[in-house]
Amino acid sequence: MSKEQQSKKVAFLGLGVMGYPMAGHLASSGYNITVYNRTSARSEKWINEFKGNKADSPAEASQGKDIVFCCVGADPDLRQVIYGDNGALKGMNSGSIFVDHTTASAEIAKELSDEFQRHEISFLDAPVSGGQAGAENGALTIMVGGTENAFNEAHPVMDVFARNITYMGPAGYGQLTKMVNQICIAGVLQGLSEGIAFAQNAGLDGEKVLEVISKGAAQSWQMENRGHTMLKGEFNFGFAVDWMRKDLNLCLSESNNNGSRLPMSALVDQFYAHVQKRGGGRWDTSSLIDLLQNK
Amino acid sequence: MSKEQQSKKVAFLGLGVMGYPMAGHLASSGYNITVYNRTSARSEKWINEFKGNKADSPAEASQGKDIVFCCVGADPDLRQVIYGDNGALKGMNSGSIFVDHTTASAEIAKELSDEFQRHEISFLDAPVSGGQAGAENGALTIMVGGTENAFNEAHPVMDVFARNITYMGPAGYGQLTKMVNQICIAGVLQGLSEGIAFAQNAGLDGEKVLEVISKGAAQSWQMENRGHTMLKGEFNFGFAVDWMRKDLNLCLSESNNNGSRLPMSALVDQFYAHVQKRGGGRWDTSSLIDLLQNK
Repeated sequence: MSKEQQSKKVAFLGLGVMGYPMAGHLASSGYNITVYNRTSARSEKWINEFKGNKADSPAEASQGKDIVFCCVGADPDLRQVIYGDNGALKGMNSGSIFVDHTTASAEIAKELSDEFQRHEISFLDAPVSGGQAGAENGALTIMVGGTENAFNEAHPVMDVFARNITYMGPAGYGQLTKMVNQICIAGVLQGLSEGIAFAQNAGLDGEKVLEVISKGAAQSWQMENRGHTMLKGEFNFGFAVDWMRKDLNLCLSESNNNGSRLPMSALVDQFYAHVQKRGGGRWDTSSLIDLLQNK
Repeated sequence: MSKEQQSKKVAFLGLGVMGYPMAGHLASSGYNITVYNRTSARSEKWINEFKGNKADSPAEASQGKDIVFCCVGADPDLRQVIYGDNGALKGMNSGSIFVDHTTASAEIAKELSDEFQRHEISFLDAPVSGGQAGAENGALTIMVGGTENAFNEAHPVMDVFARNITYMGPAGYGQLTKMVNQICIAGVLQGLSEGIAFAQNAGLDGEKVLEVISKGAAQSWQMENRGHTMLKGEFNFGFAVDWMRKDLNLCLSESNNNGSRLPMSALVDQFYAHVQKRGGGRWDTSSLIDLLQNK
């Protein structure tokens, strides 16, 4: 890392499952970093592990920083952390950049971009994929919307926790790209669930079936990485159904804006609602198969 | 190939898009092969290209052969070729093997297996995947049901047109495995169609989106091999919608036997019915997206 880069002052707001290791990579790479988390104990744990500075509010964390990173739950959390009484907007200087790694709506990305612009601050919507493992291994994929200037400045900093960073277009385009990702995953997982449950009901050797069909046109990342645990009915890991429902609802809501039809995504969202009712809100998204297994 | 193998007498019934090149690989590998096709001109074309012997009926083609291969359209064609007036059953000797590469029902596989057994002939249901390109390149995947003895005898012969050959279990298990494959593909393609159409409606750069999301959990063979043509609306190649509907109907019918629920597969089958109505019966299965693109 260059001297110029290392002298950048950065903050990280939100030390959840994703933010905690992402901020950790920034600290480990030599950045002077200030962190804020709603639950203070989590910030203290982080400071013990990575050093750096702890702030008691988003405004305090953001004060005088060049880049403020954020990774919280959803649109309302984002509003709170930015617009709230001691929100980031109160602390940030003109010329700085706010990078939002939350998976949120494209609409809030455009709204925040406009609001920050009025304060001469750049905003990037930069949702990630790769899950907890990707965050921990510094191997995330990041899809970025906003101005190219801000993208170019933030790129080398994000690089410490990402494997692929792509500029997608103006404000909101990062979020829209993430939505396409989740729509594709919904289809893959429902097909895989129906296929594997069918194999089990037909008396086939599920492992052997996966081995054969993963060599051809039915192959998918989900088949290779989730097929075996689906056969065993193991769901206590991975990307939670609660989060997937949040994401699918962002897609369905956005489809009303851009005139898309998402019949399968809407159906799968309803199946996930059923998984939640059965107590599987924290299960991995591959638990769709639980509704189809005859037991 | 060993002398013992090369001395095997084989026949091939059905020189369609798949059977024509499969039989060709057998001839090119040195097998003494007799072919039969319903449309005689097609047999003559094949003989001109590969040499070998032409028969005027399945019975004549099968006469005195060690292994009779077959690749026709669907269950009714299979009945005709085997039970018909000059069907294969009339020509085959006890101790020989009938290998069916048609994608057909698991029920007819079990029925034919029983019927052939009464004549002391072994039957293998051996549907393939890999499409026309796989057949032409000798790179098919074959999923086989039947007795292990017959499998072991036919394996080295099938090897000349296959890359992967797997024994799945008793009669019908090859067909059931192929069904799992098609169910998984239906889900992948519907998700991909909704995702790509959404990207286009949202104004995203579709190629850039595919490049980004194909590196993560949304990745699939279909995304890599069909995503680009879907963006362009090109469907004049590949695996036809008419065939996919035939296959999905086999799955839906079998699900009534084994107690599986296939809500997404049933929905996608209906979407394919719509594609057919729009004149897309010969289009590639990725044409599902045609129903979602706003044009």
